Amino acid sequence: MRSALVVGTGLIGTSIALALSRRGIDVYLTDADEAAARTAASLGAGRVGVPAQPVDLGILAVPPARIGTELARGQREGWARAFTDVGSVKARVHGAAEDAGADLARFIGGHPLAGRERSGPLAARADLFEGRPWVLTPGAATSRDTLNQALELVSLCGAVPVVMDTEEHDHAVALISHAPHLVAALMAARLEHAREESVRISGTGIRDLTRIAGGAPELWEDILAANAPAIADVLAAYAADLSAAVDALRALGDASKDAEAAKRGAAELADLLRRGNAGHARIPGKHGAASASYTPVPVVISDRPGELARLFAAAGSAGVNIEDVRIDHSPGREAGLVELMVDPTVADRFAMVLTAAGWTVQA
Amino acid sequence: MRSALVVGTGLIGTSIALALSRRGIDVYLTDADEAAARTAASLGAGRVGVPAQPVDLGILAVPPARIGTELARGQREGWARAFTDVGSVKARVHGAAEDAGADLARFIGGHPLAGRERSGPLAARADLFEGRPWVLTPGAATSRDTLNQALELVSLCGAVPVVMDTEEHDHAVALISHAPHLVAALMAARLEHAREESVRISGTGIRDLTRIAGGAPELWEDILAANAPAIADVLAAYAADLSAAVDALRALGDASKDAEAAKRGAAELADLLRRGNAGHARIPGKHGAASASYTPVPVVISDRPGELARLFAAAGSAGVNIEDVRIDHSPGREAGLVELMVDPTVADRFAMVLTAAGWTVQA
Repeated sequence: MRSALVVGTGLIGTSIALALSRRGIDVYLTDADEAAARTAASLGAGRVGVPAQPVDLGILAVPPARIGTELARGQREGWARAFTDVGSVKARVHGAAEDAGADLARFIGGHPLAGRERSGPLAARADLFEGRPWVLTPGAATSRDTLNQALELVSLCGAVPVVMDTEEHDHAVALISHAPHLVAALMAARLEHAREESVRISGTGIRDLTRIAGGAPELWEDILAANAPAIADVLAAYAADLSAAVDALRALGDASKDAEAAKRGAAELADLLRRGNAGHARIPGKHGAASASYTPVPVVISDRPGELARLFAAAGSAGVNIEDVRIDHSPGREAGLVELMVDPTVADRFAMVLTAAGWTVQA
Repeated sequence: MRSALVVGTGLIGTSIALALSRRGIDVYLTDADEAAARTAASLGAGRVGVPAQPVDLGILAVPPARIGTELARGQREGWARAFTDVGSVKARVHGAAEDAGADLARFIGGHPLAGRERSGPLAARADLFEGRPWVLTPGAATSRDTLNQALELVSLCGAVPVVMDTEEHDHAVALISHAPHLVAALMAARLEHAREESVRISGTGIRDLTRIAGGAPELWEDILAANAPAIADVLAAYAADLSAAVDALRALGDASKDAEAAKRGAAELADLLRRGNAGHARIPGKHGAASASYTPVPVVISDRPGELARLFAAAGSAGVNIEDVRIDHSPGREAGLVELMVDPTVADRFAMVLTAAGWTVQA
C-alpha cells in the first residue's frame, strides 16, 4: 500500500490516518466537517482533500447510516481501488453496500476493536490499534486483492486481523460488547433513585461494573438499533439465568420453611458463581493472550519518583518480560503494591532476583 | 482507646490491627489458625494472645457464622469492655448475637467498605480503610460508650463513619455490592461456552464489567445466602427492566413489520441508557465525593522516567489540588494521556499554567 483515503476524521479515522502516515503512506483526509479534517491534518495525519487519482484503499470511518452512500459515491468518483469501513455492526453495512449498488468485489467490511472514552480527532493516537483485534468480514463477492489491501491496513496499524462472516461478527460483538453495555446500564439505572446513604458507600466493584454505562447514549442508541436481534438473543439467555438466580435467592431467604429448596438454591448459586469464574477466565488480557496464563509477582514500592522506572529496569536486566502491570493505587499513601504479570515459568526466579536486589516481593 | 483485641487476622483484621498499632494502641491478636496470628504479629500488627485484663474494644474479624459464638465467648471470658464486628451482612449478625445470649449493650455491628482482590494477613495494609466508608449499625440496646469506642476505631483507621440501621445497611449492600456481583457473574457465565473467536475480540469494557466475577465463589456463596431476600428484591427490579429492554430490542429488530412498536422500543432503550448515565453519575469517586464534580485536565506525557512526578510537581507549584488521576495506559507506546481530575473552578487556569510551562494539554 502506498496511498490511502480516510473519509471521516473522528477518533478512529484520524488514528488510522496517523498510523498510516507514520509508516510513510500518502494519506488523504475528508470529513463532512472540514474543520475536523484540518485538525487531523495539523496533527500529521495526512492532507485534506480527495485524491485526483484512485488511492490503494479508502477507509470509510463515518457513522453506520452513511457507509452505503459514501461507498457508492467513492466508487463512482474513483477515490480508491478498494474500500473498507470501521462500523461496529457488519450485516447491516454489507446490506447497505448492496442496496446502494456498490461494486461488492471492491469492498470488505472491517471493525477495529479499539476505542476510548474520549472522541474526536484530538483524542486520536497512532497506536490506538496496537495489539488489538481488527475483524474483517469479506462478502462472497469480495476480491482477493481487496482482502489483501485490508490485511495490509490492519498490519500497518499494528493490529491483529480476525476474519469472520458478518453474522458471526455481529453475534460476537452482541455478546462481548453490546449486551454487556445494557447489563451495566441496567445496574447503574438501579442507582438513579437510590437513597443517598446507599450510594455513598459504593466501592470500586460497582464503579468498574457500571463504568461503560457512562458512555454517550446517542452513540449507543444507534449501535443497539443496528444489532438489536443478536443483542436480544444474548440478553434473553441472560434473563433466564437471572430468573433462576432470583428464585434461588428467594428459596434461600425462606430456608426455615423449605430446607430442601434452600439447599437446591444454594447449589444453583454456587454453580452460577463457578460459571462466572470460568467465563471470566476466558477473557483475554494484553495482546489477546488468556489473562489466566500469567503469574503475578507482587512488589511493594514507595511513591518516590522513578520507583516504577527502577523496577522495570530491574526486570529488564533480569531478562524478564513484563506482560502486564497492575498498580494498586490508593491516593495519599506512601507505599503501594505493583503486580508484575510474567510468564509462569520465570515467576519464581524473577521474585528471587528482585528480592536479592532489595525489593520487597510479597509471598 | 488504649488497647484492643483483634479476633481473626485475615486481610481485614490484620489491616485494622496495623492501623491501630501504628497509632500507639496496644493490640492483641488471635486467630483459629495460630500461624496467621503470628504472621500478623511479625508484620507489626500487635502481639499474639488474649489479654489478661479486658481491653477497650474487641474487633471480631471472623467469618459471619462464628461472630455470635465468638462474641458470647469474648464477653464471658472478659476479653474486652465492648465489641464490634466487620461482617458484610448485619441483620443476621445482630440476630446471632441475640441468639448467643450476648450482652447487647456492649456490642455494635460494623462493616468497613474496603477490600482487595487478595486475602490473608500478608495482603493487609494499615491504610486499607483510608477515606473509605465504615458503616456502624448500633442496635436498640447498644450503649453510648460502645458506639463511641467504635467511632474511635473508625477514626483511628482513617475511615468515614456512616451510621445505619441493620435493614437499611443490608439493602444498601445488596444494591451496591451483592446484586452487582451476581449481575457480573451472570454476564461472565455467558462467555463460558462462547466461541473462541468471540472471546478473542473482547476488550476492556467486558473485562471491567466482569472483573468482580473472578472473586472466590465460596466467600460469595456465604454472602449471598446471608443477604438473600434483599438481593432478590434488587435483582427482581433489575429483571423487570431487563425484560423491557429485550422486548424493545425485539421490536427494533422487527421494525419493518411494526414501525410504531420499533419507535416505542427505541424510546424505551434511550430512556434506559439515560437512566444508566444518571445512576452512574451518582457513584462517588475518591473519598466519597461525587465523581461528576471534578473536571478532567488531559495532559500528554512521554514514558520517560519521572514524567508523572514532574507533572505533579507542576500542579503543586500552581497550587492546584489533584483530586484523582486516570492514566490511559497502553503497553509499548511512547506517549500517553493522563487525566488530572481537579476542581471545576480551577481547571481552566490550571490548563493555561501547564500549557505555559510547556505541557501539551488536550482541548
